[in-house]
Amino acid sequence: MDIGLIGLGRMGQGMTRSFLRAGHRVTVYNRTRERAEALRGQGAGVAETIAEACRSGVVLTMVADDAALQSLVFAEGGILRALPLGGLHISSSTISVALSAQLAAAHAEAGQAFVSAPVFGRPEAAAEGRLLVVVAGPPEAIEKCRPLLAAISARLEVFGDRPALANAVKLAGNFLIANVIEALAEGLVFLRSSGVDPAQFLELFTGTLFNAPIYKSYGSILLKGDYDTVGFSLPLGLKDIRLFLAAADARNLPMPVASLLRDRMLTAMARGYQDRDWCVLGQVAAEDAGLASGPPSGAMSSAKGNE
Amino acid sequence: MDIGLIGLGRMGQGMTRSFLRAGHRVTVYNRTRERAEALRGQGAGVAETIAEACRSGVVLTMVADDAALQSLVFAEGGILRALPLGGLHISSSTISVALSAQLAAAHAEAGQAFVSAPVFGRPEAAAEGRLLVVVAGPPEAIEKCRPLLAAISARLEVFGDRPALANAVKLAGNFLIANVIEALAEGLVFLRSSGVDPAQFLELFTGTLFNAPIYKSYGSILLKGDYDTVGFSLPLGLKDIRLFLAAADARNLPMPVASLLRDRMLTAMARGYQDRDWCVLGQVAAEDAGLASGPPSGAMSSAKGNE
Amino acid sequence: MDIGLIGLGRMGQGMTRSFLRAGHRVTVYNRTRERAEALRGQGAGVAETIAEACRSGVVLTMVADDAALQSLVFAEGGILRALPLGGLHISSSTISVALSAQLAAAHAEAGQAFVSAPVFGRPEAAAEGRLLVVVAGPPEAIEKCRPLLAAISARLEVFGDRPALANAVKLAGNFLIANVIEALAEGLVFLRSSGVDPAQFLELFTGTLFNAPIYKSYGSILLKGDYDTVGFSLPLGLKDIRLFLAAADARNLPMPVASLLRDRMLTAMARGYQDRDWCVLGQVAAEDAGLASGPPSGAMSSAKGNE
Amino acid sequence: MDIGLIGLGRMGQGMTRSFLRAGHRVTVYNRTRERAEALRGQGAGVAETIAEACRSGVVLTMVADDAALQSLVFAEGGILRALPLGGLHISSSTISVALSAQLAAAHAEAGQAFVSAPVFGRPEAAAEGRLLVVVAGPPEAIEKCRPLLAAISARLEVFGDRPALANAVKLAGNFLIANVIEALAEGLVFLRSSGVDPAQFLELFTGTLFNAPIYKSYGSILLKGDYDTVGFSLPLGLKDIRLFLAAADARNLPMPVASLLRDRMLTAMARGYQDRDWCVLGQVAAEDAGLASGPPSGAMSSAKGNE
Repeated sequence: MDIGLIGLGRMGQGMTRSFLRAGHRVTVYNRTRERAEALRGQGAGVAETIAEACRSGVVLTMVADDAALQSLVFAEGGILRALPLGGLHISSSTISVALSAQLAAAHAEAGQAFVSAPVFGRPEAAAEGRLLVVVAGPPEAIEKCRPLLAAISARLEVFGDRPALANAVKLAGNFLIANVIEALAEGLVFLRSSGVDPAQFLELFTGTLFNAPIYKSYGSILLKGDYDTVGFSLPLGLKDIRLFLAAADARNLPMPVASLLRDRMLTAMARGYQDRDWCVLGQVAAEDAGLASGPPSGAMSSAKGNE
Repeated sequence: MDIGLIGLGRMGQGMTRSFLRAGHRVTVYNRTRERAEALRGQGAGVAETIAEACRSGVVLTMVADDAALQSLVFAEGGILRALPLGGLHISSSTISVALSAQLAAAHAEAGQAFVSAPVFGRPEAAAEGRLLVVVAGPPEAIEKCRPLLAAISARLEVFGDRPALANAVKLAGNFLIANVIEALAEGLVFLRSSGVDPAQFLELFTGTLFNAPIYKSYGSILLKGDYDTVGFSLPLGLKDIRLFLAAADARNLPMPVASLLRDRMLTAMARGYQDRDWCVLGQVAAEDAGLASGPPSGAMSSAKGNE
Repeated sequence: MDIGLIGLGRMGQGMTRSFLRAGHRVTVYNRTRERAEALRGQGAGVAETIAEACRSGVVLTMVADDAALQSLVFAEGGILRALPLGGLHISSSTISVALSAQLAAAHAEAGQAFVSAPVFGRPEAAAEGRLLVVVAGPPEAIEKCRPLLAAISARLEVFGDRPALANAVKLAGNFLIANVIEALAEGLVFLRSSGVDPAQFLELFTGTLFNAPIYKSYGSILLKGDYDTVGFSLPLGLKDIRLFLAAADARNLPMPVASLLRDRMLTAMARGYQDRDWCVLGQVAAEDAGLASGPPSGAMSSAKGNE
Repeated sequence: MDIGLIGLGRMGQGMTRSFLRAGHRVTVYNRTRERAEALRGQGAGVAETIAEACRSGVVLTMVADDAALQSLVFAEGGILRALPLGGLHISSSTISVALSAQLAAAHAEAGQAFVSAPVFGRPEAAAEGRLLVVVAGPPEAIEKCRPLLAAISARLEVFGDRPALANAVKLAGNFLIANVIEALAEGLVFLRSSGVDPAQFLELFTGTLFNAPIYKSYGSILLKGDYDTVGFSLPLGLKDIRLFLAAADARNLPMPVASLLRDRMLTAMARGYQDRDWCVLGQVAAEDAGLASGPPSGAMSSAKGNE
């Protein structure tokens, strides 16, 4: 299949590799050109413009947030204009439910298809084709995507014909993951303070009742307290909880656990941990329990005074 | 082995069956005699008094709460007096960390051993010998218990020589389980309100990232909304969160998620759900999101006015 | 002074009356014409368009939310174009800190002045000139406003030259008020359930330690449980807490009490209380404590299923 | 009137002075004798034993917590035995609702009267006779106390004939005060970070909507950030919130704001602030918002590891 791919962060790069390995022809575009060039050696074409990346009629976007995607799609020379009639836009970014609905409407009005296909998994999983992809959009468009998405995924699950459904699933999933981090962080603080060996506790429970990848991987990170190796950064985690709360808020749904997670993450941001993994919630919990001292004062978030 | 067993709730009954099946001789005692008599047919001896249940020198207790165990141990004619010098008290009840420490001291002073051995698992698991048992106490006393506890457990894990350690582990485990219920409850409310099929969501995630028994079993209960089949009752769940918070409080450990869980459970109690499974948090979340109407007014908790 | 006034909700109508009484000439504009006509009899001019309301060079806006004000200012034929060079826009709406900053920049670029002047007080206070007005903006523009704002206020306080400062003050003030409502709601639930006469409690404390207008007026409403007489509606209160949280979020400030207030208000919305006073938090607290039954099922928030 | 007074903390000392000034004869008792001797010069008699302090038949107790009062009353040689038939015990300590009910029953059984008379106000107010006293107990016993309590109070309010009612009022009052501290702490963090002058904000609002002693005094402390001058210590404040939560818990009343306050205070304790005023919640809020650095690591709560 012939596709364009826009957004060459670590996830986008990994996905590109998987597409190429599966025999698809990929033309990549990135705002900063260097990352695109790096993929040329692996067989990717490099587009000079968004329009060029849209030329094949199928474009996949993988960018940081709503603002980035809005600008890609709606700006002059953006995807909405560049994509031909009957074209297809596959969005894998974690974006708001509201923007997903807006994009679906805009593409439909332009005679184009829009499929939402956010993913679960780390950059390595993207590069190895082991992502979990949740998809929603018009059935025929999804069928068109299927061979493509198969190249990056261990599992692909379709949630319906409104693209926003897949975004709701992605946000709910990340909420549940963030909840695991905070609950484990509090639990480990309790155990350490009580004199229980937390490693033994985790080994036991992640081998029995909580025998799930999420508890194993996050438990291990929290145990080591290694928050400088960033698998998923705190600001991205906070972004996702904000999106979850915003989507819930729009439907008058109180989400007390998510509100709490937001405040814990904001505390982590305020303490200067914006460059760390979102598991740094473990550090925050330890500090609040007097089991760790806070950040060096130089690391405090700065320039608070004025807008 | 020759033992006494005091406390014939559903868990105690199941444990008795497993002990008998493994060839141990069990003399049971229960405040209300009938439950004891029912086990006579299965080979158990029936004690008339606590003292009689203590005669073999090894007694296991499985009762509802701190008050019940305190009375069993410290009352006139209680375990402390009845157990011979060198005797052994194995406590499997979910009790406070503080009481566990107090019992350890009292038994030591009386020249007796105290082992804390709380369990994870339902009554059926007790009857089938498939419990997860967490143990702490003096090493030689634990070795003495081992063949006995093997009869009820699929796995037995020793956490150290202070009995209270096992209680801390039990409370932390139940905190993590309660957290799963509340997080799933909020997540399912979000998904339902967003138009996502919650059954499909659960099937996907409990088959991948959250592929753990806890998520599968509780997810299934929340999905069906069947809170009248009581696996673990709301008041018992609330009791355990209270014990967790009390143990944390005694060490100046803030536990924001646990505080939230406590308030949610109290709301459920106040709405008259004291006879339901603790998964009724799913009902509370749905009501707070306008997705379900509250209890019929007759079910409201009554007699609030005076002490 | 010659001014235009846009937005004739109950607050805008009250302000218009106070301006007229003080001898100012007011040309009013409202999207739905009738309300404007009603003020003609009291001496107001009626504008057919936004542009006409801007003709005098000074326009005051008092509308429901960000979206309404954005549309008024930035739409074709909006205030930004209609106001002459050197003109002045006074914004009394409760809007976001972010929009206030954006408006300041836009007006400055257009060679116009922007003053933020949100108010505390009910419609009656507006009509009687007894509002508390908090103001921020360029000093010379504020001096120009002063005689005007004097007509509606018992007190006028200037907070600096960035208009957004006044909006931050307004949001912080409403946060503190909402907090009083929730705390009193919980306290009264506790007292009633304990058998204490809540009326006696309130009379004592609002006559001593909590001898402040806010505690007296909100205490009295909560005591009566009269939430159908709407002084300030639940959706408006929720809007303000959302704006407070958004402004805090933009600066990485965790606000645990405000997060809690948001969730309580969302619960109230979800239970179908959107047409009541924001003191309906008292009803929610009573329901959660089993002291009141929930809304009739017909009142539940409806049409949750699909976007 | 001839009375005994037990408990010479700063409050008890102040009360003694007010009693003496009003012409009452006071025999004081304190566990550590020195404080009693210091009052001899001011006209107080000094008792060697609890029994001696009870000899007149009227004894007032003012101690730190439940445990201290329980020991005073129930221990061998304690008040219950020492007080004559028809004697009167006035309890001004902030104790649990449950203990108050227990004391009422115990004294009634002993043919004695029990009046609960907790107070609001600082030690200086006690010494100057300006306390707010809330009273509950048998009417005739209260009448007997009245001239006595008049000597320490600016206002005395009777809440009914069950002593526990006064304790519920005291706890609810302290909950509302703690809530003011936390809300102001969050609000001031928001304002400072937004660039608003917090002193100006407080001056405005405590002169208008929040024109109450509580907002003025606590606002001023938070503004200065002087938490080393201890008016009411953090551990005492935490104790009271715990008692409030315990009383609510016993009636299945969720108290989300109080749960939050508890966690904030525990965080403060864990950060090593146990010797500061309970307004140190302002410091915690600032730290969590990145506006202040945490405690020097040496101040962290220590010796967490083992029980």
